[in-house]
Amino acid sequence: MVVQRQFLIRFLPDNKTIKVPKDYNLRQALLDCGIDIESSCGGVGTCGRCRVQVTKGRTRSKRNKFITPDEKKKGYALSCLTKIESDLTVVIPERKKLKSKIEEGLFEKTTDKLYSNIKKDELAAAEIKPWIIKDSVEIEKPTLNYNVNDLYRLEKSVKNKLKIENIFVPIRILRELPFLLRENNWEIFITFDKSSNTLLNIQGNNSEKKCFGFALDIGTTTLVMHLVDLTTGEIIGTASEYNPQIKFGEDIINRIVYSIKKGGLNKLRDAVIESINGMILRLLAGSKINEEDVAAVMVAGNSTMMHIFYGVPPRFIREEPYITVTNKFTNIRACELDLKYISNAIVYSIEGVTSYLGGDITSGVLATNLANKKELTLFLDLGTNGELVVGNSEWMIGCSCSAGPAFEGGGVRCGIRAVEGAIEKVVIEQDAYKCFYEVIGDKKPVGICGSGLIDLLGEMYLKGVIDRKGKFNKDIGNTFLKCIDGDYYYVLVDAEDSGTGEDIFINEVDINNLMRAKAAIYSGIKTLLEEVDLNLNDIEKVFIAGGLGKNINIQSAIVIGMLPDIDIKKYSFLGNTSVRGAYLCLLSEDRYRYSEEIAGKITYIELSMNMKFMDRYIAGLFLPYTDLKDFPTVESMLYSI
Amino acid sequence: MVVQRQFLIRFLPDNKTIKVPKDYNLRQALLDCGIDIESSCGGVGTCGRCRVQVTKGRTRSKRNKFITPDEKKKGYALSCLTKIESDLTVVIPERKKLKSKIEEGLFEKTTDKLYSNIKKDELAAAEIKPWIIKDSVEIEKPTLNYNVNDLYRLEKSVKNKLKIENIFVPIRILRELPFLLRENNWEIFITFDKSSNTLLNIQGNNSEKKCFGFALDIGTTTLVMHLVDLTTGEIIGTASEYNPQIKFGEDIINRIVYSIKKGGLNKLRDAVIESINGMILRLLAGSKINEEDVAAVMVAGNSTMMHIFYGVPPRFIREEPYITVTNKFTNIRACELDLKYISNAIVYSIEGVTSYLGGDITSGVLATNLANKKELTLFLDLGTNGELVVGNSEWMIGCSCSAGPAFEGGGVRCGIRAVEGAIEKVVIEQDAYKCFYEVIGDKKPVGICGSGLIDLLGEMYLKGVIDRKGKFNKDIGNTFLKCIDGDYYYVLVDAEDSGTGEDIFINEVDINNLMRAKAAIYSGIKTLLEEVDLNLNDIEKVFIAGGLGKNINIQSAIVIGMLPDIDIKKYSFLGNTSVRGAYLCLLSEDRYRYSEEIAGKITYIELSMNMKFMDRYIAGLFLPYTDLKDFPTVESMLYSI
Repeated sequence: MVVQRQFLIRFLPDNKTIKVPKDYNLRQALLDCGIDIESSCGGVGTCGRCRVQVTKGRTRSKRNKFITPDEKKKGYALSCLTKIESDLTVVIPERKKLKSKIEEGLFEKTTDKLYSNIKKDELAAAEIKPWIIKDSVEIEKPTLNYNVNDLYRLEKSVKNKLKIENIFVPIRILRELPFLLRENNWEIFITFDKSSNTLLNIQGNNSEKKCFGFALDIGTTTLVMHLVDLTTGEIIGTASEYNPQIKFGEDIINRIVYSIKKGGLNKLRDAVIESINGMILRLLAGSKINEEDVAAVMVAGNSTMMHIFYGVPPRFIREEPYITVTNKFTNIRACELDLKYISNAIVYSIEGVTSYLGGDITSGVLATNLANKKELTLFLDLGTNGELVVGNSEWMIGCSCSAGPAFEGGGVRCGIRAVEGAIEKVVIEQDAYKCFYEVIGDKKPVGICGSGLIDLLGEMYLKGVIDRKGKFNKDIGNTFLKCIDGDYYYVLVDAEDSGTGEDIFINEVDINNLMRAKAAIYSGIKTLLEEVDLNLNDIEKVFIAGGLGKNINIQSAIVIGMLPDIDIKKYSFLGNTSVRGAYLCLLSEDRYRYSEEIAGKITYIELSMNMKFMDRYIAGLFLPYTDLKDFPTVESMLYSI
Repeated sequence: MVVQRQFLIRFLPDNKTIKVPKDYNLRQALLDCGIDIESSCGGVGTCGRCRVQVTKGRTRSKRNKFITPDEKKKGYALSCLTKIESDLTVVIPERKKLKSKIEEGLFEKTTDKLYSNIKKDELAAAEIKPWIIKDSVEIEKPTLNYNVNDLYRLEKSVKNKLKIENIFVPIRILRELPFLLRENNWEIFITFDKSSNTLLNIQGNNSEKKCFGFALDIGTTTLVMHLVDLTTGEIIGTASEYNPQIKFGEDIINRIVYSIKKGGLNKLRDAVIESINGMILRLLAGSKINEEDVAAVMVAGNSTMMHIFYGVPPRFIREEPYITVTNKFTNIRACELDLKYISNAIVYSIEGVTSYLGGDITSGVLATNLANKKELTLFLDLGTNGELVVGNSEWMIGCSCSAGPAFEGGGVRCGIRAVEGAIEKVVIEQDAYKCFYEVIGDKKPVGICGSGLIDLLGEMYLKGVIDRKGKFNKDIGNTFLKCIDGDYYYVLVDAEDSGTGEDIFINEVDINNLMRAKAAIYSGIKTLLEEVDLNLNDIEKVFIAGGLGKNINIQSAIVIGMLPDIDIKKYSFLGNTSVRGAYLCLLSEDRYRYSEEIAGKITYIELSMNMKFMDRYIAGLFLPYTDLKDFPTVESMLYSI
C-alpha cells in the first residue's frame, strides 16, 4: 500500500496551516482551514475573486482572464483553479478578509432608530398584542380529596388565566413539571403560544413576566437579528453579520447550484446556523438576558435562504417551472433546527409569495404598510437580488429582477461591500478626470462599495469618461485611463494611496456588469407598472429597502437610469424592512396573520419570460436609457454641463 | 496521591470480569457487568433473591436472615449486602438467570388465538376503522402556468383524497418531498394520521397500501408486543420479554424508589427502551416488513411504567396524595423516545384512570367490553400488582390492591416465574405428605411459579400440612418437613431430583407472603363490591387477566381464599388484556376515543386508607378466610376429607 504524501500549506497572514494530499484544490484547503475567501461563482473560476499569492512552493493553475502573465510570475493565482503540488506558503490579500473585521463588535445597544428619516405614521408602527405570553399561574395543591394529576391542575389554571379551551403540553414539560410545581409552592411561570395553543416553557416563581424573542432576517449577503422584549416591544440589541454562505457563491443561483452538490445543502445550512448561533450568543451575553426567557424566533428571508435554513432542498426554485417546496414553513422548535442556547424557543417564519418573491418581501410590505395605503406606492428591496412590489390597499403586484451582486461588489474587480475602507462617494473632476472620493471609517481606500459605484458610474457618464454604452472615451486625454494588454482601466486610486498597495480601478467588464444590474432594476419597475396600465408618474411614493438602498445617492441612481426620474421627494430609504416586518409579527399575532394575508394578495409577475421586460432591459444597457425622454432631468443635466 | 487498588471480579459461569475499587458493592458490580440478577427489594437485603456464592477471595457482608451460618462458610452471600475486599471469583446460581433463557426465541408467528377459551361475542371484537391511513395520491404536475409550490399541490391532493380540511406537514417531510415527487412521476404514497391531521410519512410509488403498527403492553414484569397489519387487523407477530427493570426492583414501589436515585429514572428508562428496541427489531426481521411502513405504536401500561417509558418522574405516585403527573401522555414521534428502526412512527398511549389504575386497566376494560355489558362483571388483572374493576354499562368502579410479587416468585425463596423448569401444578399425597408436581417444559424442577404456589398453598391446607393460619402442623408425622436452626421447611423436591442441586421447599415466611397477597386480592374484591352495596353472589361474570391469571387453577385459588367462592363457570381467563386493548385502539379511532371515555368513567376507590379493606385484609390472613361462611364449597371440602 502506498501512503499518500501530505503537503503542509501555510496561510499568511493568519499563519494557519493544514495538511492535504497532492492535487488538492487550494480554495478547498482554504475553506477546510476555516478561512472565508470571497467568491461569487462558487469556485468555478468565473468571478476572479478568490485570488491569492503563492510565495513558496509549486502549484498548477488553469489559465484564466483574471491573472496576467506578469502576476502569474509573482505567484498570483485563483485559488479555485489551483492544484497543490508541494508544501506551500500562501498569502491571502487583506482586502479579501475585510468582512471578518466588521463581523466583530457589531453588537450595539440600539433603540428603534432605523426609520428616523421618515414620518412614523407612514409605516406600520409596532403594535403590542402579545401572542407569546409569559405569566405566573397558581396551581391548586393536590390533597387526598382532590388528588387529580399535576397536568390536569396545571391545565385548569392556564385555561382560567388565559381564557382558552385546549392546551398542548409537550412531553419535555411533563418531565419537569412535578418537581417544578412542588419546589415553587404551586406557583410557576408559564410561557404560552396562543397561536398554536402550545405550552412552550415552565419556570420557577423566581422568574418574571418578561419574555423575549428574536427577529431575524436571513439575507443573501447579510444576517440581521434583533433581540426584542415581547412585553414592551423594546429592541434590546441588534447583531448583524455577513452571511457566511457567501464563500459558496455570492448570489442565490450560485447557492442553489452549490446545494445540489453532495453534502452541499448541509454545508450551506451549517454555515448560516453557526453564524446565527454566534449572534444569539452575543445578543444574550450583551444583554444579560437568561436564555430560558427567549420564547420565539421570527424569521424572514427570500425563498432560497428559507429553504436552506430549514434544510429543504432549494433546487427546483432554479429549474423550470421555478417553484418552491413551500412558501410557508411549519413552526418548529429551535433545537430541531440546531439553534443553540434557546432550546425552548419556537421558530416561526414569514410566508413568502413564490420562488423569487420571498418572506422578506412579505415582511417588507407589512413594514411599509403598503397594503393599507391609498397612494400608489412602489416598494423596492435592493439587496443581492432586486425585488419590487407596486400597489396600494386595493391591489399589489410584484416581481423579481435578478440584478446580480454587482452593486454589492460582486462581478466588479475592486468592488467590496460597505465596510471600512470602502469608497462610498465619488466625484470626478470636470475635464481633468481625477477622481475624488469619501471612504468609510477614515481609512485608506481598499475598494469601492455599491453607493460609490453608482456615483462613479453617474459621474463617469456625466463627465464624459464613458459614453452612453459604458465604453471608455479614449480620445479625451484622460490620464487616469491605463491600458494593459489591450484592456483599459480607469484608475480611481493609485497603488501608493490605496490600502492594498494596488491600484483601485474600474474596467469595461465591471461597467458592463453594473449596467446590466441597473438595467434589470429599471426595466423591472417599468414592466411591472405597465402590467397594470400605469406609468412612472403615477407613482406617489417610493420606498427603498435593502442593504444597497441604505446609502445610495438617489440623484446618481437616477443619472445612471437605475431609478425612475421622478420627484426626489417621493423617495424614502427604509433600511432593512425584512427584519422590521419580522419584528412587528413577533409583537402581534394580528400582524403575523396579516403577513399571511399579504403573501396571498401579491400577484407575482414572472419577468424572465416577459418579452417587454427583455426589450426594456436591452434599452437599459445605455446610460441612462435608450430613450432619453424617460429621464428628462438627466437630459437637462447633460445639456447644462 | 494514592492510586486506589482495583480488584478483578470474575463471574461464573458467564466468565465475565470487571475491575472495581475496594469496598465496591457486589450487586452493583454484577449490574455494571451487564448481568441481570433478580431482586425484588431493589438492593436493600430484604428479598434474599440476589444470592451468590463467592468461591475465591475476601468479602464483607451484613448479617441477614437469608444466609445460614453454614451457607456463609461455603461463601454464600446476598450480593446487595456484600462489599468487595480482594479479587473475587463469584458463582451466580443457574436459577437466577433463567429469565435470560426464555427471552430468546419468543418470536413466533401467531394468530389471534389468545381468547379461544371464551365466546368471541363476549369480548370486544377487532373493528377495522383505520385512522392511520396509507394510500397513494397523484399530485398535479407544476407547469409554467400552474407554478404553485410542491406542498400546496400535495395538500390539495391529500385533502381531496381523504376529505379533510387541514393538514400538518412536518419539516422533515418537506426535506424529502421535492425529490420524491419528481422521482416518482408525481404519484407517491402518503401515511396520514386522521386523529391529528398530521402527515406521518411519504414514500415512493414502489411502496404499497400496507401499513403497520405495534401494540405494546409495558407490564411491571413482562413486555408484550404485537406487530399488526393496520389494513387487515392481522397480528403478524408477537414478541415478549421480561421487563429488564426487574433488576432494579421487582414491584412498582421499588422501581419508583430507584427512579428517585441520581440517574435512576434514566437507567430504568434506558433498560425498557433497549428491550423494546430489541423486540421491534425481532418482529421486523421475522416478518420481513419494511421499517418505513410502520406508522404507529399504541402503548398501554400501568401509570408507573408509562411515566418511566416517557421519562416523566413517577415519584409522586408513591407520595401522599399519590398522584400522577398525567394520566394521558401527549403523542410523540418514536425517535423522540429513543425507539429505533421506526423513526417515522408516532407513539400513542392509552389513558389511565389514576396512579394505581393505569392505562393497562383502561385497555383491559375496553378489551373485555365490560363497559357495554348488562351483566355485573368483575375484571381482575392479576400481575405484579392486582387491579380490579367492577361494573357494567351503567357504572364502573375500580381499585388496586398491592398484592405484591409473591405469586410471581417474589418474596418466596424458591419462587420463580412461569418459565421452563417451574413447577406449575401440585398435588399432595393424603397422610404421606409427599408432593407430586408437573413442571413446565419437561425438565427437572428448578423452582415453583404462581399457579404452582396457589395449588401448593391449597393442597397444604386441605391435606393438613399447614393450619388455617399458615403455620406448619409439626405433630402429624410429615417426613418432608425439615427443621434447620429452628426454622421449618416443607421440601417439595429433594436436592438430588432438582435441577439446581438444592432442595426446592417452602417455609413459613414464604407462606406468610403468599397469604398476604391472596388476602389483599380477596379483600379488594369484597370491599369494592360493598362500596356499591353488592355482594359476591351478584357477580355474573369474572374475567381474569394478567400474567398470573393465565394458568392458575381456579379451584385452588378459591380454596386459599384468593378468589370468591362462586360458581366456577362464571370465571374466564383472558391472558393479556392490556396489549389486546392497545391492539383494538390501533385498528379503530372510535375505539381509541372510547378508551378515553372509559378512563373518564371508572371511579377509583383508594383502599390504602379504607378501614373496611384493612379489616378484611386481616381476616384474609386465615385460610381460606376468617369467616368460613364466605367459602361454603371449601368448608364442604374440608368435611369431606
